[in-house]
Amino acid sequence: MKLGDLGEEGLIKLLSSIFRSDRCSGVAVSIGDDSAVLKMPGGGFLLVSTDTVLEKTHIPLEMTPEQIGAYAVNVALSDIAAMGGTPWGLVFSTVLPGSLDVDFAERIARGMEAAAGEHGTCIVGGDTQAGEDLTITGTAFGTAAEDGLMLRSGASPGDLICVTGELGSAAAGFYSLISGLTGHGHFIQRALEPKARLREGAAAARYASACMDISDGLALSLHEIGSKSGVGTMVHEDKIPVHRGLEAVAGEVGVSVRELVFYKGGDFELLLTVPSERLSALEKGFEKEGLNIFVIGEVTKHGHLLQTKDGETMAIEERGWQAFKGWQKTLKE
Amino acid sequence: MKLGDLGEEGLIKLLSSIFRSDRCSGVAVSIGDDSAVLKMPGGGFLLVSTDTVLEKTHIPLEMTPEQIGAYAVNVALSDIAAMGGTPWGLVFSTVLPGSLDVDFAERIARGMEAAAGEHGTCIVGGDTQAGEDLTITGTAFGTAAEDGLMLRSGASPGDLICVTGELGSAAAGFYSLISGLTGHGHFIQRALEPKARLREGAAAARYASACMDISDGLALSLHEIGSKSGVGTMVHEDKIPVHRGLEAVAGEVGVSVRELVFYKGGDFELLLTVPSERLSALEKGFEKEGLNIFVIGEVTKHGHLLQTKDGETMAIEERGWQAFKGWQKTLKE
Repeated sequence: MKLGDLGEEGLIKLLSSIFRSDRCSGVAVSIGDDSAVLKMPGGGFLLVSTDTVLEKTHIPLEMTPEQIGAYAVNVALSDIAAMGGTPWGLVFSTVLPGSLDVDFAERIARGMEAAAGEHGTCIVGGDTQAGEDLTITGTAFGTAAEDGLMLRSGASPGDLICVTGELGSAAAGFYSLISGLTGHGHFIQRALEPKARLREGAAAARYASACMDISDGLALSLHEIGSKSGVGTMVHEDKIPVHRGLEAVAGEVGVSVRELVFYKGGDFELLLTVPSERLSALEKGFEKEGLNIFVIGEVTKHGHLLQTKDGETMAIEERGWQAFKGWQKTLKE
Repeated sequence: MKLGDLGEEGLIKLLSSIFRSDRCSGVAVSIGDDSAVLKMPGGGFLLVSTDTVLEKTHIPLEMTPEQIGAYAVNVALSDIAAMGGTPWGLVFSTVLPGSLDVDFAERIARGMEAAAGEHGTCIVGGDTQAGEDLTITGTAFGTAAEDGLMLRSGASPGDLICVTGELGSAAAGFYSLISGLTGHGHFIQRALEPKARLREGAAAARYASACMDISDGLALSLHEIGSKSGVGTMVHEDKIPVHRGLEAVAGEVGVSVRELVFYKGGDFELLLTVPSERLSALEKGFEKEGLNIFVIGEVTKHGHLLQTKDGETMAIEERGWQAFKGWQKTLKE
């Protein structure tokens, strides 16, 4: 069998069975959450997350070098945000073609530096290799307090489901680029300039029961929290925050709003669950910081359901962005 | 100008000028040493190092998948060893072609797991992406005590220069593979199965004044410690540990022993400097642990000189393995 047939989900299952982090003391969370979590000798947790950005997979030709650098930083930090962590630093290992202009590489680096600075953190080391395809692997590390760590596994029936910002916009932007449509600046910016939701993660950490980022799509994220927490979800379509221009763009690119919102990914927002009695405290915290939070549904015992704007109830499919399979439909084994 | 003209050394200089880790408190050592070093809140240091292993650059066709996995782990851990650190964990971000056999990928992972286990550490997370060329980026993190950190910058004139094992063997192995020579099992194993010298690094940490690994070649490492510490070196060729079969292999592959030892790299041994008054304590520690240490020269005020077996004195050139330029000669700016 080839990896292309196995797919990302199958490969992660295989790797999880091989890498036995239970051999090592001090590993609180290993493969299967946004970041690995290790207990620090002096208390608190060390978070570590690594992500590769590939020229051919993730980088549209329209991205400026500065945007490429900022993208790599934000992708890496988004996993720290999803755990409720505070960023501590980043290292980058980069494969660069020898034929690349020094100016282009320098502009990528300046984009990285500016993005790290925006989030109050630093690039502290790295490695460079010569190779054919531009490949940027960022490893972000962060810290979390012992009572401020959000996992994918903590949701309980009755908890409320929240997101931190508008969904579907990044995918609408990617489709606009593919279709060569102009005048969709907001959506294209959402696609090319994602921002790690570190302030939102930190504000949620003391209240939320579970969290993850939505970069692979809302549907896959709901299924993932459901699977890790042993719960289901019910989402109300009319409560999902979308940009007022999304419907028009969806029409122009020929992809439905529901498809963009649930199944295409690219929105680096956070999906989190919060016990109902803690919701108002969480909302107050977000308001005080000037951050957005939207309640879009409830955690249930099982199944993943969508209540549409027409009042119908339908299943939320388990599909979204998967390495090796892209946007292909993947069925639950 | 293209990156191929700038070279790795030039690129690192450029990146060091862009990435301003002095913005962040708690960064003890940034770009330019084997690992980044951060102060932990509870005391001691966090070490982080990232390295990419590329199919076309680092992986000879003769490597088994298990050897590829073990190679990636040892390369990453070698930088922790060079700082005197204790490994804490590893994360891997891997680009794999969809056409790759699942069995091959599984065997790489088993090689990683076994190598991590040999060094008493664990693989705690990662990322997988589909791409054309097999690319494995390992980020190792470790801890070091505040009085047990070895940097490249600590050498002083009068210190003794030591290495932890035989040199030139890995390069002899690579040339044997290129030349299709058989019967050179020891050398080929040194090339394909490097071992991070973690025990040696830990044993040296309390005594050595400076340390780095020799993977890019002895000559570049001497120049690097010289540059970072503001010192020179004098090395005695007759004191350098080489395998008794090296001269014969060197003759067969048509590359001189001196070239293999100084300029070709691939030996994942440690180069360290130690104040003369601490040498016997260091040697006793190594002996107690059953580890090898060889004194090969002295730190001087300036210049990098080799005293040959014939009693001649000659300059040690600043060249070795460089990404983008391979084994080409590179001149000091």
